[in-house]
Amino acid sequence: MDRYHPPVKDMMFALREVVGKKDLESNPGFEDFDREFLETVYDSASEIASEIIAPTNKDGDRIGVSIKDGEVTVPKGYAEAFDAYIDGGWPTLSCNPEYGGQGMPASISMPVNEMVMAANFSWAHLVLLTNSAIRAVDAHASEELKDLYLEKLISGKFTGTMNLTEPQAGSDLSVMNTVAVPNGDCYKITGQKIFITWGEHSLSENIIHLVLARLPDAPDGVKGISLFLVPKIKLNEDRTLGERNTLKAVSVEHKLGIHGCATCVMSFEEAEGFLIGEPNQGLACMFTMMNDARIGVACESVAIAERAYQQAVNYAKDRIQGKTQSSESRVAIINHPDVRRMLLTMKSLIEIMRVMVYENTFECDLAESQPEHIKRADLLTPITKAWCSELCQDITSIALQIHGGMGYVEETGAAQHFRDARITTIYEGTTGIQANDLIGRKFIGDNGSEMNDLLNEIETEIEGSDIDIEMKTELNQAIHRAKNVSSFILENFQKDPNLPGSSSYNFVMMMGYLVGGWIAARNITAAKKGLRESDDSEFYNAKIISSSYYIEQFLPLVSSFGSSIMHGSESMMSMPDEQF
Amino acid sequence: MDRYHPPVKDMMFALREVVGKKDLESNPGFEDFDREFLETVYDSASEIASEIIAPTNKDGDRIGVSIKDGEVTVPKGYAEAFDAYIDGGWPTLSCNPEYGGQGMPASISMPVNEMVMAANFSWAHLVLLTNSAIRAVDAHASEELKDLYLEKLISGKFTGTMNLTEPQAGSDLSVMNTVAVPNGDCYKITGQKIFITWGEHSLSENIIHLVLARLPDAPDGVKGISLFLVPKIKLNEDRTLGERNTLKAVSVEHKLGIHGCATCVMSFEEAEGFLIGEPNQGLACMFTMMNDARIGVACESVAIAERAYQQAVNYAKDRIQGKTQSSESRVAIINHPDVRRMLLTMKSLIEIMRVMVYENTFECDLAESQPEHIKRADLLTPITKAWCSELCQDITSIALQIHGGMGYVEETGAAQHFRDARITTIYEGTTGIQANDLIGRKFIGDNGSEMNDLLNEIETEIEGSDIDIEMKTELNQAIHRAKNVSSFILENFQKDPNLPGSSSYNFVMMMGYLVGGWIAARNITAAKKGLRESDDSEFYNAKIISSSYYIEQFLPLVSSFGSSIMHGSESMMSMPDEQF
Repeated sequence: MDRYHPPVKDMMFALREVVGKKDLESNPGFEDFDREFLETVYDSASEIASEIIAPTNKDGDRIGVSIKDGEVTVPKGYAEAFDAYIDGGWPTLSCNPEYGGQGMPASISMPVNEMVMAANFSWAHLVLLTNSAIRAVDAHASEELKDLYLEKLISGKFTGTMNLTEPQAGSDLSVMNTVAVPNGDCYKITGQKIFITWGEHSLSENIIHLVLARLPDAPDGVKGISLFLVPKIKLNEDRTLGERNTLKAVSVEHKLGIHGCATCVMSFEEAEGFLIGEPNQGLACMFTMMNDARIGVACESVAIAERAYQQAVNYAKDRIQGKTQSSESRVAIINHPDVRRMLLTMKSLIEIMRVMVYENTFECDLAESQPEHIKRADLLTPITKAWCSELCQDITSIALQIHGGMGYVEETGAAQHFRDARITTIYEGTTGIQANDLIGRKFIGDNGSEMNDLLNEIETEIEGSDIDIEMKTELNQAIHRAKNVSSFILENFQKDPNLPGSSSYNFVMMMGYLVGGWIAARNITAAKKGLRESDDSEFYNAKIISSSYYIEQFLPLVSSFGSSIMHGSESMMSMPDEQF
Repeated sequence: MDRYHPPVKDMMFALREVVGKKDLESNPGFEDFDREFLETVYDSASEIASEIIAPTNKDGDRIGVSIKDGEVTVPKGYAEAFDAYIDGGWPTLSCNPEYGGQGMPASISMPVNEMVMAANFSWAHLVLLTNSAIRAVDAHASEELKDLYLEKLISGKFTGTMNLTEPQAGSDLSVMNTVAVPNGDCYKITGQKIFITWGEHSLSENIIHLVLARLPDAPDGVKGISLFLVPKIKLNEDRTLGERNTLKAVSVEHKLGIHGCATCVMSFEEAEGFLIGEPNQGLACMFTMMNDARIGVACESVAIAERAYQQAVNYAKDRIQGKTQSSESRVAIINHPDVRRMLLTMKSLIEIMRVMVYENTFECDLAESQPEHIKRADLLTPITKAWCSELCQDITSIALQIHGGMGYVEETGAAQHFRDARITTIYEGTTGIQANDLIGRKFIGDNGSEMNDLLNEIETEIEGSDIDIEMKTELNQAIHRAKNVSSFILENFQKDPNLPGSSSYNFVMMMGYLVGGWIAARNITAAKKGLRESDDSEFYNAKIISSSYYIEQFLPLVSSFGSSIMHGSESMMSMPDEQF
């Protein structure tokens, strides 16, 4: 019941749909990735994900991690999975070739990330956060620091962490108070950080902490934050491991989910650290990774949703219960229309979410060489993160629901995905933060220009898509609604300063469902092309059905989110505090 | 942070809004319940709920129940809370006066149920399932059995359980195979039952199990099921406790939530039992309680939602984070518009849900003496159960979200409500079962007649309600949409036999949001009356705001659920099994 099979065919379909449409060869970095090569890569990743990593998932949840005297103990199988993963060279896929990476575009490595996260979500945080640390070091650290640390991080000998949050400084980093005092060519870092994923463990030789802290003369607020590299074990001159740095994990959190992931409270006491980038530019350094990390969470959302979906499908095909109108004998519950509705809801949403993640990642890849793609990548990111993570809640909840009473029993495993998923709308910026980022910085801050371009592009693509006329009409109505809502916000946010904040959630969800409709139309078009050009008609017909189902069942929500926005902020802001 | 204050004022508003509008005094059984008396009752219940029961909630979750050699251990404080509750006479409120009950209408006791469930949801299952058992015995057992057991059950000396489910027989009871063999004036019951809430414990002197089983000559399927009363400890001739019956709890489930509730696997080995009602009429006996139990789960949903809401409000008022457009200094997060949106969403939905529960219960009360109310009560029940329990998922999830990263840490307490709530869409009939009951038995089976009456009544009441013209227009559009959808289903279910099953979920949710809109309009009308007639303008103004917010934000969903239904069942049913 608890097996996981990466949906390589679906991943390939999604990737080709996204990358292919933009004339693949013209995109620097994509020339070498033909279908056959990618299939080989993904099949190989699929094997390690399903055979080696996935079997560690259940014990990871059931037994979880624990801490004693600053040492973190991890569940059985974690070390073997980690060794197999780094021995296979998987962490290096999209890293810098100068330091041992393979230099693939991020969109090419995204399916591998999805597999790893679906296989064991808790475990996967270790390799994926290390990847974020690698990007930060690669983009901002001095040549000397890169030379000392990057190769070890990329190879997986060292792992990395991100130390942002403090108890009083969650979404609001301006009041952070960890300090960094200059001391020769390094700094002494002192402070406490919370929610540090894999802040301590012994799976790798060393842990490289990236820590936000304040210099003594730093300005107040977010403009006075700098970024430091703080190794768990200091390096000797000859690069061998030296003495232990003065930092430690003081506890691990007891969480709703991701029990197999060490979420640490870290204490730094004059720990030796090295400045990354310019003084007081720490937040900017972090922000270069923000798009990545946020799309990463969207990809996680697809991954957990897919894992939960697979378990629900297996259960629905096995569990015999009740009869249907057309059968005299008892049937597997997949034959009950409402169970089918739940399965198709999951399948349809997951397929759309996956394309959205790849699309956004592809725009980031393009942006590296073609700056005109930066705005598009930036606009899509909060939509992708918020929408995919919110839907992930619904999907993992539906998967549990399909199991009935058994879903509520922990041994079944459905509850784990539901609990694990719950973090995705919270970390790397809550849904509220994404919503504010979209409506404030990306939409109003841009005077609606990039949004307008996106909506026009969607309109043009729908016009040229190979879908039936009723669907075109529904999609055009949805686009029209989104345009009206956009104009309404741009026209009214100055008179009604609470309008953006009060409608931000509805706005990001509306845009998510609309972009989903665009993707559904593209999927249908690509699937019809596939039907004509290949003999895999079952697969392509299924894609047409699941994407059509999206347009029928979920596109209508564009209109209801839009209606909600058009009511303005009055009711919301007029409730006095004491009446809550 | 983990305190609970029953919202007595909101409960009174909801109850008066429901009961008052139908000319209170003309309803048999309601003559004695004036405002002052009810306030005294509820304030007194409020004290025991908040002071004695609520403090046991967190340990109930953290420590939970355990079993060893068939004995169940419960968390500290459970016994004291139970004793205080029965000593206060609270279980007797709506029970039969012939056996020591106080004979109040169920709608009068519903606010007390809500308080108890919000105070400690796991613990409350014990007293509320006992209440269900009492109703079954009272309605169907022989005078002799009633005489032996009812007074003890009502007084709380004995507690009761419902034994329906077996591993192979969940939602489909037809394949149940526990057997009952006649043996003199009693029966020998043999079989295994699962998911038996409070199947074992030592809080009461005795446990009375109501067990569904088959007689040796019983017909196949649900027409061959009989109901038996099976005491844990047999009674001597003089009614004192005698020897232990041959039944035991063999394990307790390890569940996602309600850790403080003993969900047992029960084993019966030729246990002595007594027939309740006629042979082979067991399911009918159970069904007389079904409305009750389902509305009970809806009430639970209100209760957990309210508890989660109160915790979120407290957190939002305490947690300082970030600035707003209008403030220079850092503010409590309740000042951020998106946090306010979440709080108002919770408040607004909970208030509507509460009225829906009372409305449905009141129709059941009326149905006892006025049979013309039976159809209305039956029509509302699946809507109330499905809609309230589904919204409870959203509300407890939002409450967790408001806590940000802290919400994901178990110690905060928000996660408990989220986990506890997850059972409500599953037990006493899943949302899918409710949806099928509504569209099949209650709507199509009735040829839409009672639904039509309800929609017309809503239309008339909206016309006469004291709300502004835009709201009337929106509500009328929603009614119009519901009427169209209803006609569409009635016209097409014969040509498209999968239409009811495939649209049942959308139908029950659409009806939930529409009935919610009706209630919102009634709340506004009642609040405006309250504004004119009393000086509590803050309270009534807040009611107007929260109900208006419902109409603005959630009524648009009637249209989108309707659109989804009008697309028919084709996409859904055409997906081949192997493509899932």
